[in-house]
Amino acid sequence: MLMKAISGLVLICCLFSNGANAQTLEIIQQITDDYKKVQTHLYNELIPFWDRNAVDKQYGGFLTNFDANGKPIDMPEKYLNTQCRMVWWFSQLNMVMPNETYQHKAEQGVDFLIQYFWDEKNGGWNWKVEKDGSQIDKGKIVYGQSFAIYSLADYYISTGDKRGLEYAEKTFDLLQKYCADTQHGGYYENLEANWAPAPDGFNGGDRKGLDTHMHLMEAFTSLYMASGKELHKRKLIEIIKLISEKMVDHQSGSGLNQFDLERNTLPAINIKRTWNAEREGEKPADPTETTSYGHNTELVWLMVRALNAAGESIEPYKTMFKKLLDNAVKYGIDFENGGIYRDGLRKGGALVLEKEWWQHTESLVGFLTGYKLFQDVKYLEAFQAIWSFVDKKMINHQVGEWRRLLDREGNVIDGNISNEWKVAYHSGRSMIECERRLRELMQRD
Amino acid sequence: MLMKAISGLVLICCLFSNGANAQTLEIIQQITDDYKKVQTHLYNELIPFWDRNAVDKQYGGFLTNFDANGKPIDMPEKYLNTQCRMVWWFSQLNMVMPNETYQHKAEQGVDFLIQYFWDEKNGGWNWKVEKDGSQIDKGKIVYGQSFAIYSLADYYISTGDKRGLEYAEKTFDLLQKYCADTQHGGYYENLEANWAPAPDGFNGGDRKGLDTHMHLMEAFTSLYMASGKELHKRKLIEIIKLISEKMVDHQSGSGLNQFDLERNTLPAINIKRTWNAEREGEKPADPTETTSYGHNTELVWLMVRALNAAGESIEPYKTMFKKLLDNAVKYGIDFENGGIYRDGLRKGGALVLEKEWWQHTESLVGFLTGYKLFQDVKYLEAFQAIWSFVDKKMINHQVGEWRRLLDREGNVIDGNISNEWKVAYHSGRSMIECERRLRELMQRD
Repeated sequence: MLMKAISGLVLICCLFSNGANAQTLEIIQQITDDYKKVQTHLYNELIPFWDRNAVDKQYGGFLTNFDANGKPIDMPEKYLNTQCRMVWWFSQLNMVMPNETYQHKAEQGVDFLIQYFWDEKNGGWNWKVEKDGSQIDKGKIVYGQSFAIYSLADYYISTGDKRGLEYAEKTFDLLQKYCADTQHGGYYENLEANWAPAPDGFNGGDRKGLDTHMHLMEAFTSLYMASGKELHKRKLIEIIKLISEKMVDHQSGSGLNQFDLERNTLPAINIKRTWNAEREGEKPADPTETTSYGHNTELVWLMVRALNAAGESIEPYKTMFKKLLDNAVKYGIDFENGGIYRDGLRKGGALVLEKEWWQHTESLVGFLTGYKLFQDVKYLEAFQAIWSFVDKKMINHQVGEWRRLLDREGNVIDGNISNEWKVAYHSGRSMIECERRLRELMQRD
Repeated sequence: MLMKAISGLVLICCLFSNGANAQTLEIIQQITDDYKKVQTHLYNELIPFWDRNAVDKQYGGFLTNFDANGKPIDMPEKYLNTQCRMVWWFSQLNMVMPNETYQHKAEQGVDFLIQYFWDEKNGGWNWKVEKDGSQIDKGKIVYGQSFAIYSLADYYISTGDKRGLEYAEKTFDLLQKYCADTQHGGYYENLEANWAPAPDGFNGGDRKGLDTHMHLMEAFTSLYMASGKELHKRKLIEIIKLISEKMVDHQSGSGLNQFDLERNTLPAINIKRTWNAEREGEKPADPTETTSYGHNTELVWLMVRALNAAGESIEPYKTMFKKLLDNAVKYGIDFENGGIYRDGLRKGGALVLEKEWWQHTESLVGFLTGYKLFQDVKYLEAFQAIWSFVDKKMINHQVGEWRRLLDREGNVIDGNISNEWKVAYHSGRSMIECERRLRELMQRD
């Protein structure tokens, strides 16, 4: 208790030392309010929404598409990444508050995954099936494989079901065998059904990206936590270093986007089987050098988590973390309307001013992590600017989930609660992670 | 036949266009003489020597050490790489002239390998056993793993025994899983029994080298020829490009030697479980930038073989091949005494003037390959300078094998016919490859 009291003092001193007293007192009050709101949203809205609606009672696995009123939209297909994300969600819930219902929901998701997504011939996870599990697209997409590892490792930690670790490890082994680029380092990201690299260009065979590599880092973190194996730790550290050394513009504090196989930055194109390409289709390379504030702040907290799991010091990475957060504060936060912009210019300046759900979820966690690392009150202010916008405009409290897309002012562009890419992963994880971090701040008072 | 006659004309025109007539006529005569001598040595001396002496009739596997008179030296240990090299040798002989005796000798070598060298617990091949197969050193040395892949793939091609391909593929998969460096590309080379990287320094955990990567290329070539799998071809092409882009000084035409994990050139140290370290022990880093004429010329012909197997064009690599060969002609060949020097300075100039067997074996093949690529008579002259020295001084014709080490003039320093690193791999392969190439030149006349 003494320690907690001292920590609380440190926090308060720190807050006071950084700005006007009235303002910082207000922030302390805000933390308490935010904590309550996050908690209410998580336990009274989000969790119940998915608990009621997620399981596909007809075919097994999970429903992924819900309209603005939270009603299921009949969706002919199931995607690997969202099926995995829901396995992850119920596994995570079972860790936060153990409950057989969550276990069973996760378990039936794993049953569906193994029965319908696992490629018995080539190994690995197919990309897409029909809602009843019939095969549609056997492509091996590393982004999807990473979510299989992440969810199955956490499922194993949560439930003890050995299939989770077994399949997570099998997937990891296949990635090493087929996707490691032994010429340049890093991983091939887009491969055919038989794990031969996809053609170049729109098929993405000749591209690497921060997004997929960051999600591999996230997956290897959980895998190492599940297995404790030296190899998994080693590959985790390798990808941490690869990302920090090659995939971030350290001068401006911006994550880079796309690369050729040698990891030279390239003008981004849309790549098949990505969220962007499914909305916009194929389009010519955009020479504008953009960066994603959502990815940059997500990278901070996922890398802190990865370093902690691997037992590596955070110190060598702190300058980079600070740069990434400061760039997002300076250019990404809309202090006028609240929220965080979708994309910016790599050298500085917001570019796409819409407000999309996932950048908000990840930046909330990123800024609370940033405050813990640096005790700089501006990260709490950034958190506050995002959260108040999310709470007022983005969350559909009546339904219990987040709208997908708003304009700068908060008017709804796409009010649907979930689609074949969204589900509970970003929103739910963000609320769990924020609740935990805010509680820690509260306990210091 | 018409084609052969035309080719013969091309050869003769080419020879004549490059120098004095008398000299080139002499070289043509020499090719015929050399062919006969190589053939005699191979079939009447080398093959019978190993056919009589190689198999360890007491314990199985192969004997590796023989004195200057070709008498076996009792050796308490068996090494992975030389056991594999002898499996390769008898497999190769069975391809050149199919014979059940060779098959059986290779097969009993494979039996010994699988029974005593294969690590059932961790997978992969242990480094060293006692002569009866008892365990001594379970370290996983990629140099040794590469010879397991090379020999077992060729054993499969030669005999059809599926264990060959099965274990070659298993080894390849383990290399991808444990040894691929996913941060920088290339492979870790020195690992512990459980495939965790060895400590830095003398244990070599933090080093990469041309030698091991070149032998991986050699191994992946045979593996792809055996399996026909896209993955094996892809990894073969990756390592070809890695070596040519990162491990050769293209300006001087010298192979580089040692690297850190990022593939920056480092002053070489002796590394445990290498031929150098076993003779000389641990020693401080040598800041002298050396290159091996043996490796450089070996690289030329092994990479030509690899590119041909992968169906890749040789054209983009020809400038490098020419540079490597020209550097070796200029600084490596001892045109006064014959033979090729052991090591030189990377920027030019011979450094270690002793004459060791393996540099001679590989440069002979390298220069004949060079002549075929470039039709430059100086490569035939280089071949001739090496071969005449080998024939007169290095080969112990009475015994049937090559002495290990001579001084510059050809006086014997180490006259032993074989040791735990030597056996028939370099000498025997060189004579098979030279016989094939000289026959091709002969047939053109």
